[in-house]
Amino acid sequence: MTEIAEFKRGPGGRPTREEAERRLGTLLATAMRLFLERGFEAVSVEEIAKQAGVAKRFIYARYGDKAELFIAAVEQSFVGRLEDTLHGIEPSRHGVERGLYEFGQKLIAMAMQPEAIALHRLFVSSAPQFPEVAKRFVERNRERAFALVGHVLRFYADRGDIELRQPQLMMEQFFISVIGIPQRLALLGMRESAEDEDQRLRLAIRLFVNGCRPSGNKA
Amino acid sequence: MTEIAEFKRGPGGRPTREEAERRLGTLLATAMRLFLERGFEAVSVEEIAKQAGVAKRFIYARYGDKAELFIAAVEQSFVGRLEDTLHGIEPSRHGVERGLYEFGQKLIAMAMQPEAIALHRLFVSSAPQFPEVAKRFVERNRERAFALVGHVLRFYADRGDIELRQPQLMMEQFFISVIGIPQRLALLGMRESAEDEDQRLRLAIRLFVNGCRPSGNKA
Repeated sequence: MTEIAEFKRGPGGRPTREEAERRLGTLLATAMRLFLERGFEAVSVEEIAKQAGVAKRFIYARYGDKAELFIAAVEQSFVGRLEDTLHGIEPSRHGVERGLYEFGQKLIAMAMQPEAIALHRLFVSSAPQFPEVAKRFVERNRERAFALVGHVLRFYADRGDIELRQPQLMMEQFFISVIGIPQRLALLGMRESAEDEDQRLRLAIRLFVNGCRPSGNKA
Repeated sequence: MTEIAEFKRGPGGRPTREEAERRLGTLLATAMRLFLERGFEAVSVEEIAKQAGVAKRFIYARYGDKAELFIAAVEQSFVGRLEDTLHGIEPSRHGVERGLYEFGQKLIAMAMQPEAIALHRLFVSSAPQFPEVAKRFVERNRERAFALVGHVLRFYADRGDIELRQPQLMMEQFFISVIGIPQRLALLGMRESAEDEDQRLRLAIRLFVNGCRPSGNKA
């Protein structure tokens, strides 16, 4: 068990907590890299263990199966990073349209990262053979991701700039109207010019903001 | 050359035009079935020829390569059917919101057909290995598909119900705001309840119609 021997030991010979956490980080990063390179089916837990330098029982003590390990890897690589990026967003002082435009730019930049597209493709490709993987992931993370969009939309709703009836659905509509077409093209291996992408975003924001103006502001 | 022998012969021993067309239809349907079953990479032109009962030179006389054959098969199976379905649409007499809602229902029904989802998944999965296939398909069919959406939107724009500045972009925003989330879920192997799907569609239509009301109708 050379892998275990590499752990730093605390008193009593157990790996220190820091060391176990470091190992966990290496495991999840290694798993993510292998899954993105070769797909969900082609990578075994055994190989991940070997390449990450941990024992298989280190993995199975934490994750029930390969799907759980995959989901944990995605959560560490993407969902955490998403939250870090979006949490720092300050609503613009230049009003709702400008604020949502800037927010939309950040959403697109994140969704279009090559790794994020590769991950999405991996989910789409493996859905027929492994229907549970995407389902479990979405169930666990959907609200978390949309909560961040909600945070921004609610800021403008509180100021009375937009009206958020059916907030969950509104968040999802905002999200899809901003990243839907660019992401769809990217999944097919294409990308518009920066100028076209910007024009599309501006229109999406204008439509959305006009679409949910408070009733008092309408004719 | 048993395949050739099966052709009905016209005067001079050549297959009749009807027979050649029938063969072509069989070829494209067989190709589509095989691609959907096994993916773009795994299916050879040779096998398609064999299963469709045509000679390889019957194929190469018409299509330069496997990608061209694939695109032609998709065009016959999906794009043609799409046009048939959408051409019959009569704008509702109950106004723009009701009319676009009914149109949206048809778009979703089409996009959510298991075969359409499987085809989309096939494009997404094969994009890294065969970047040209989706690109050529999109270049050839994007305008054609959106022209149908444009036909419906323009009807309401002509009546003054909505305003279509940047019509191409507006069509694409309408399209993605209606089918984006359902199709995204379907690609991951999921589907919402009919009730949730309907609520989402109603909201998408309301946002869109409010979003592009003519300026005169706004405060």
